[in-house]
Amino acid sequence: MGPGPMLVEPRIYAAMGMPIVSHVDPYFYEVAEDIRKLLGMVFSTQNTFNMVISGTGTAGMETAIVNFTEPGDKFAVFVSGYFSDRISEIARRQGNEVVRLEKPWGETFSGQEVREFIHREKPQMAAFVQAETSTGAYQPGKVIAEAAHECGALVIGDCVTSLGGMPVKVDENGIDIAYSCSQKGLSCPPGLAPITVSPRAMEKLRARKTPVRSFYMDLKLLDDYYDGAHRYHHTAPISMFYALREALLIVAEEGLENRWQRHRRNHLALVAGLEAMGLRMHVSDPAQRLWTLNTPRVPEGISDAKVRARLVQDYDIEILGGFGPLAGKVFRIGLMGASSTEQNVLLVLEALETALAAEGFQPAASGRAAAERCYALSGQEA
Amino acid sequence: MGPGPMLVEPRIYAAMGMPIVSHVDPYFYEVAEDIRKLLGMVFSTQNTFNMVISGTGTAGMETAIVNFTEPGDKFAVFVSGYFSDRISEIARRQGNEVVRLEKPWGETFSGQEVREFIHREKPQMAAFVQAETSTGAYQPGKVIAEAAHECGALVIGDCVTSLGGMPVKVDENGIDIAYSCSQKGLSCPPGLAPITVSPRAMEKLRARKTPVRSFYMDLKLLDDYYDGAHRYHHTAPISMFYALREALLIVAEEGLENRWQRHRRNHLALVAGLEAMGLRMHVSDPAQRLWTLNTPRVPEGISDAKVRARLVQDYDIEILGGFGPLAGKVFRIGLMGASSTEQNVLLVLEALETALAAEGFQPAASGRAAAERCYALSGQEA
Repeated sequence: MGPGPMLVEPRIYAAMGMPIVSHVDPYFYEVAEDIRKLLGMVFSTQNTFNMVISGTGTAGMETAIVNFTEPGDKFAVFVSGYFSDRISEIARRQGNEVVRLEKPWGETFSGQEVREFIHREKPQMAAFVQAETSTGAYQPGKVIAEAAHECGALVIGDCVTSLGGMPVKVDENGIDIAYSCSQKGLSCPPGLAPITVSPRAMEKLRARKTPVRSFYMDLKLLDDYYDGAHRYHHTAPISMFYALREALLIVAEEGLENRWQRHRRNHLALVAGLEAMGLRMHVSDPAQRLWTLNTPRVPEGISDAKVRARLVQDYDIEILGGFGPLAGKVFRIGLMGASSTEQNVLLVLEALETALAAEGFQPAASGRAAAERCYALSGQEA
Repeated sequence: MGPGPMLVEPRIYAAMGMPIVSHVDPYFYEVAEDIRKLLGMVFSTQNTFNMVISGTGTAGMETAIVNFTEPGDKFAVFVSGYFSDRISEIARRQGNEVVRLEKPWGETFSGQEVREFIHREKPQMAAFVQAETSTGAYQPGKVIAEAAHECGALVIGDCVTSLGGMPVKVDENGIDIAYSCSQKGLSCPPGLAPITVSPRAMEKLRARKTPVRSFYMDLKLLDDYYDGAHRYHHTAPISMFYALREALLIVAEEGLENRWQRHRRNHLALVAGLEAMGLRMHVSDPAQRLWTLNTPRVPEGISDAKVRARLVQDYDIEILGGFGPLAGKVFRIGLMGASSTEQNVLLVLEALETALAAEGFQPAASGRAAAERCYALSGQEA
C-alpha cells in the first residue's frame, strides 16, 4: 500500500505467462492495437496516437520531453514536488531553457498564478504533474493548458499516479502529451509507459528541425513500427504487452467512471478514518487530494520509520514515508487499482491506530469506526 | 526460429508470474544482486559493474553510447550490417563525430584493417557488433580492442546475439562496454538489456565533463539505485527481473561452456544439412559464423517470402528473411537458448527441404540425413 507498484490481479499474471510470439508477428500487432484503443478510453481522449513506451514511467517522461522539444526551447515547469523537479532535470539535459514556477511541496497552482507565469515567460512548452506521487496533490491541468495554448505553447502532463484511478481527461483538460506507467492505477506490473499525443503535438513533432536525440524513444520511428508499415524498431517486451492489455480490459469491464468512484469512495473513507484519529492531511483542500495516494502528516514527535516498521512487522503492510522536504513529515498510503478496497482501508486504519499508539500517539477516536460509518453513509447514497 | 525472441522455458514463465514486490523492497535488491553476479558469469568478466537496463537491446546500445561519449567525441564504427549502422545513428544523435569503416554486409574486419583505421582516426571510442543479427557474422572483437587501447580509446561491443549462446568473453577480448538483450541466447522474454562495464570505462564515466543527456539511462544514477545507497531512480520492471534471474540460473545449471557446445553442435549440424541440400552460407568462413543465427543464401530464382510462408503454414515454423542489402537473399534461422535443439534442427531442415522443393528448388541431397550423420559423428567424438 505504498505509492506503487500495486497488487496485481491473478488474471494479469496469467496473461503475462502466455507463450510469447515474435515482435513482428501479426498477433503481436493485434495486441498492440488493442492496447492503443483501450488507452484512448483510460486517457479519455479522441487522440489516435496512443502508444506504450518499452520502459517505465520515467521513460515516458523522457519520451515526452525529447520528442516535443528542441535544444534552446523555453520550457516552463510548475514545480511543487519531486516529479516536476525531475521533469526540469530531463528538460535541462535536453538543452532546453528551463523556467520554473515553484511552490512548497504539496501545493497546486491557481489560474491566476498560471496565467501570470505563462504570459510572462511565453514558453514553447509547459509541463506539470497532474498527480504528484511525492506529495499526494492533484492538479487536473485545465488552467495550465488554457494559458499555454493562448501563448502557442504545448502542454505535457505527468499522469503517472492518476491514470486508471481518477480523472485524467486528456481532451477535456487540453493536455497535449500525457504519459503514465503500468503499475499504479492500472495495477499491472511495472515495465511500460503509456503515452498519448494530441494532433497539435503531432504537428510539432513532424515539423522538428533537429533529430530526436534518443533513438530508442523516437516516436516517429516507434509509430512506423507499431502502425502502418511495421518497420522494425526494437523488440517490444511482448509479455508486458499481454499484461497491460489484460489490465486495460479489466478497467474496461469495471467501467472507467465506476473505477474512479471506487477509488474516490475508498479515499474518502480512509481520510475520514485518518482525521477521526487526529491526523491532518498534508494537502489541505479536499478537492486537490489524490484518490490514489494519500498523504497524512506524521504527528509531532512520532518517528514515521518506526511506525512503518511496525506495520510491516505486525501486519505485513508496506506504506512509504515522504522524502525531500517531506522526509519524516508524511506517510504515503496508496489505494490504487486492485489495492483500492474497503478491506484494505479498514485494515490499514486499524494497523496505523495500533502502531501509532505503540509509538506514543493516542488516536482521538477509532479510525476504523469512522471509515465504517463513511462506507455506511455512501452505501445509503448509492 | 527467427532471430529472436526464442522459446521460453516454462520455469521462466513461472518465475515471471511470482507476486511482485516493490522496487524498494530488500527482496528486489537481492534479485538484482543475483543478476549482477550471474551476468559476470555469462559475460565471462571480472567486472563488478554489471547491470540490466529497463528496456530492450536497443536501450542497452543507447545506454552504452550516451554514458561513455560526450558531444564532439570522435566515434569509430566498424560497419558491415544493420546494427553497426544503428550504432552510428545513435552516436550521431548524441553529437559525436562518427567515422566509419565499411564493408559489405556479412563480412568481418581483419587485424590489419582494424589497426590502419584506428591508428589513422585516433577516436575516443570504437564500436563493433560481435554478433550481427542481420547477417550472421561473428567478430569476437579482440583485434579491435587491442588497436583501440593502443590509441587510448574505449571499446563498445554489441553482444545482443552472442550472449548465452557463444563466447562473448568480455575480459579476454578486452571489450570495455558490452550490452545484450534477454530474448536471444538467454531465452527469456524481451524487456531487459544486460550491460557490463570495465574499470577503465568507469573511470571515463566518472570523469565526464557534461551530464549524460538521458536521465533514464544515466548509469551513475542507476548505480546509486541498485547498489549502495539504493537511491530511487525508477520503478524497475520487477517481473522481468524475476524472469531474467531464472534464465541466468538455467545457464549456470547447464554450464556456460556446455551451453556454447550445444549451440555449436546444433549450428554445425544445421549447416551440414543446408550445405548437403545445396545451399550456400552467406558467411563463407566457418570461423566467422554465428552459432546462434544461421544465414543460408536463398537459391537463385526462389522467393524467400513464399518459402517462409510455407514453413509457417505447413510446419508452424517461423524463420525470417534478410533485410537491407540482404533482402530476399538470405534466410535467418535462429538456434538460441531453449530453441537450439537437435529436434529443431532436423525439423527445420525437413521443412525447408519440402518448402524449397515446392517452390522449384530440388535439394541435391537430404539435409535432414546429413544433419543426422553430423550428430552421429559428434556423438562418437563425445
